[in-house]
Amino acid sequence: MKIYDTEGFPNPARVRIALAEKGATDQVQFVPVDVMGGEHRTEAFKAKNPDAVVPCLELADGTHISQCNAITEYIDNHFEGPSLTGETPKQRAQISMMNLRAENGLLNAVGTYFHHATPGLGPDLETYQCAEWGNKQKQVAGQTMAYLDEVLADNEYLAGSEFSVADITAFAGLAFADFAKVDIPETLSNLTAWRAKVSARPSIAG
Amino acid sequence: MKIYDTEGFPNPARVRIALAEKGATDQVQFVPVDVMGGEHRTEAFKAKNPDAVVPCLELADGTHISQCNAITEYIDNHFEGPSLTGETPKQRAQISMMNLRAENGLLNAVGTYFHHATPGLGPDLETYQCAEWGNKQKQVAGQTMAYLDEVLADNEYLAGSEFSVADITAFAGLAFADFAKVDIPETLSNLTAWRAKVSARPSIAG
Repeated sequence: MKIYDTEGFPNPARVRIALAEKGATDQVQFVPVDVMGGEHRTEAFKAKNPDAVVPCLELADGTHISQCNAITEYIDNHFEGPSLTGETPKQRAQISMMNLRAENGLLNAVGTYFHHATPGLGPDLETYQCAEWGNKQKQVAGQTMAYLDEVLADNEYLAGSEFSVADITAFAGLAFADFAKVDIPETLSNLTAWRAKVSARPSIAG
Repeated sequence: MKIYDTEGFPNPARVRIALAEKGATDQVQFVPVDVMGGEHRTEAFKAKNPDAVVPCLELADGTHISQCNAITEYIDNHFEGPSLTGETPKQRAQISMMNLRAENGLLNAVGTYFHHATPGLGPDLETYQCAEWGNKQKQVAGQTMAYLDEVLADNEYLAGSEFSVADITAFAGLAFADFAKVDIPETLSNLTAWRAKVSARPSIAG
C-alpha cells in the first residue's frame, strides 16, 4: 500500500494520524509529492487522482483512492485496532456528522481562506483567487470553533466519549488555522483543553 | 424515526431515494420544514440541527443526525436490503470517494451557484451572496459533469458495477442543475444514458 502525499500538509496529516492510531504506519510506503513544484497538477499524478490534490492512496492491486474521508475510512476498516469511524449505525452516523462539520466548517474553511485571501502557496500555484469568499470562510472557521467548543462542554471528544476521525479532522483544522494565522480564541476553553489532550496522544506526540 | 425535510429539495431527495432503495419509506415519519418561511433558521430547528439546513434525522431515542452523507449512511446501515455504501473496505472507499466527488463537484457546486449567483430562494433568505464565487462554482459543476461522463464510459454506475449513494448524489445534483438552469451538455452521452437508467429505478420512478 502506498500513500502519495506531502508531509506537514493538513489533509496528509489526517491520514498519517489515522495510520498511527491503528498502529499501521510501517505498513505503508509514503511517496512524496512535490506540491510546491506543481507535481500534483501533472498528468501523471492526475491519472492517480483527478482531484489533483494530496493525499492519494494506492492499494496493492493498483486501485487509487482519494478524498481524505474515503482514505481514512479505508484505513480504519482495513487495519485492526480501535475503530475511528464507529461500530453501530448510530455511532457511525454521529462520527460522520461531526467529521463533516469539522471538515467543512473548520479545515476546508481555513483552507479556502488561506488559498483565496492570503498569498497561499504563491502566485504560481494560486492561479485563481476570490478574496471575498476567502474572508467569508475565515468567519465560518471562527463560528465553527465556537460551535466545537460548545460540543466539547458536554463531550470528551467531538462525537462523544471516544476519539474518532472527527477529532483528527478538527485537530488538523486547528493546526492549519495556526499556520494560516486564523485566530483560535483562548476564551474557547473547552476547545483549548481538548486540543491539549489530543496533542498528547502517541499518534501525534510520537 | 422522523425526518425533518422539505419535499422536492435536493438533499431531502437524496434521503428519500435512499429510503426507497431500502424499501423503508413507510418506516419513517416525514415532518415538513417551511424553508421558504425561514423555519430552518429558528432556534427550535437549530436545536435539532445547528447547520440550519434540511434534512435532519431524529432517531427514536431523540438523537439528531444531520449532514446528508451521515443520514444516508445511517439509513443504509440500519435497514436491510442491498448495500448503498459498499460491503468491503475497498468498495466502501470507492463509493465514498465518488460520492464526495459528486457532492462537492456537482451538487454543492450547483447549490453555491444557485444561492450566490442567481436570486436563489429570494432576498429574505439569501442574506449573503458572493456572485463571483457562485459563477466559479458553475464552471466546477460543468467540469464535474464531464468527469462523471468519463467515469461512466467504463462503469455501469459511478462507483463500479453496483448502484450506490454516489449515483443518488449525482442524480440529485443533475436535478438541481436543471432547476438552477445549469446546462447539462447533451454531448455527455454516457452521463445522459446513465441518468435515463437511474430515472427508471422504482425508487425514483415510483
